[in-house]
Amino acid sequence: MTELAQTKTTALVREKHRGHFDTQDIYPILDATPLCHIGYVSEGRPIVTPTIHWRQGDYVYWHGSRAARSLQTNAESEVCLTVTLMDGLVLARSAFSHSMNFRSVMIFGQAKIIDDVEEKTASLKHLVNHLYPDRWDTLRHMTRKELNATTVLALPITEASAKVRTGGPGDGEEDSSLPIWAGVVPITTTMGEPIPCSRMPDGVAEPDHVSHYTVG
Amino acid sequence: MTELAQTKTTALVREKHRGHFDTQDIYPILDATPLCHIGYVSEGRPIVTPTIHWRQGDYVYWHGSRAARSLQTNAESEVCLTVTLMDGLVLARSAFSHSMNFRSVMIFGQAKIIDDVEEKTASLKHLVNHLYPDRWDTLRHMTRKELNATTVLALPITEASAKVRTGGPGDGEEDSSLPIWAGVVPITTTMGEPIPCSRMPDGVAEPDHVSHYTVG
Repeated sequence: MTELAQTKTTALVREKHRGHFDTQDIYPILDATPLCHIGYVSEGRPIVTPTIHWRQGDYVYWHGSRAARSLQTNAESEVCLTVTLMDGLVLARSAFSHSMNFRSVMIFGQAKIIDDVEEKTASLKHLVNHLYPDRWDTLRHMTRKELNATTVLALPITEASAKVRTGGPGDGEEDSSLPIWAGVVPITTTMGEPIPCSRMPDGVAEPDHVSHYTVG
Repeated sequence: MTELAQTKTTALVREKHRGHFDTQDIYPILDATPLCHIGYVSEGRPIVTPTIHWRQGDYVYWHGSRAARSLQTNAESEVCLTVTLMDGLVLARSAFSHSMNFRSVMIFGQAKIIDDVEEKTASLKHLVNHLYPDRWDTLRHMTRKELNATTVLALPITEASAKVRTGGPGDGEEDSSLPIWAGVVPITTTMGEPIPCSRMPDGVAEPDHVSHYTVG
C-alpha cells in the first residue's frame, strides 16, 4: 500500500445557461451500482428507502409501483438521493484512524413524474438495457396496464456532491513506527454464476447480456 | 432456481414493559454490513449520509467528528437509519417483473449522544472488536483528545422494519412458457487479500482478526 490516504470532496452546482460542467467525479459513481437510498420528508419525519436508480444524461431516475405512497411523496417534495460504494476497510494503529474507503454521491432536488408514455417507456428501456445490453427487445412487450402501474421519477442533477476516500491508513508518523499491523482490506462486489429459472422451457440459451453488468 | 419469488416485510414496534421481541429478521441484517444510510431533516430539507454503524443489544450506533454539523443535527431531531444489502439481479420474461433480491432494514427514532466517557469508550471498542476481534487491546491507546473529538450516537431499536426479497423471477405462468432466459445473477461482497501499509516496521505479522470480518 503505497497510496497515501486521501479524502476528496467534489461539489457540483449546475448553473443555468452554462454549457459544460465537471461531472467526471459524480457520474461514474452513479453508474457503478444500481442501488441508491432516497431520503424524503413525510409528515415532518425523514424516511430513507433503498431503490434501483439509473442515469440518463444529466438526470437520475427511479421507479416503482404507482400505488406506492412514497413515490408520490418523492414527487411532491425535495429529495436527497445518495449512492455509496464500499471499497475497503482501513486498519490503523489507533482506533481513531480506522476508516473505510468508499465512493459516495449525494444529489439534492425536486423530482418530477414522467407522464409522457414514450418518455416513460424509453426510460424503462434504458434501465433494462443499461443492466443487460439489448435485452429489452428480447422481452415480452410491456403492456399499457404495466406501464400505467409504474411510476417513473426523474431528478435533474443540478445540486450534487461526491466524496471519495482512497489509500491506506492516515496514522501520523509517530504511530506509524509502532509494531501494529495496519493496511487495507479491499471490498469488492462480485456477480456470481447466473442461476436459470427452473420454469424455463428446454433449450433457452443464456444470452451474453446476463453476465454483462458488474457492480463497482 | 427452485425457490419461488418471495417478498417478506417484518415490522417491529417495541412496546414498553415487554420482555421479548421478535428481532430475528432485523438484527442479522444490521449486523451483516458496516454501511448504513442515515436520513434526517435539516432546515426542512432531507439529507441522507452514508456512515458506519454497529449494533449493541437493542441499540444501533454511529460516530463521527465532533465538528460535523450533521451529527449534532442527528441528535436534535428524528432520524431514519436504513441498511441495505444487494443479493441478486432478477431477470424475468417481462421488463415489469425484473427485480432485485435484497435485504433491508429501516429504523426510526430519536438518537442520543453518548456523553459518558466510559460508555463512549466501550462503544468504540465494540465497533473495533466487532470488525476485528480483540484488536482494540493491540492498538495504541485512544487519547482523551481523540475521544473528545469523537461524537457517538445511539438510536434505540424500537420502531423498525425489515424487507427481504428472495427467489427467482415472479413471472406469471403464461410468461414463464416463453423462450426467454430468466433467472437470478447472485451478488456477493468479497473481502480481498489484506494490503499491508508500506510504512510498517519489518516483522509485523498479520493478525488473524484482519481477515475475520465479511460483509453479507
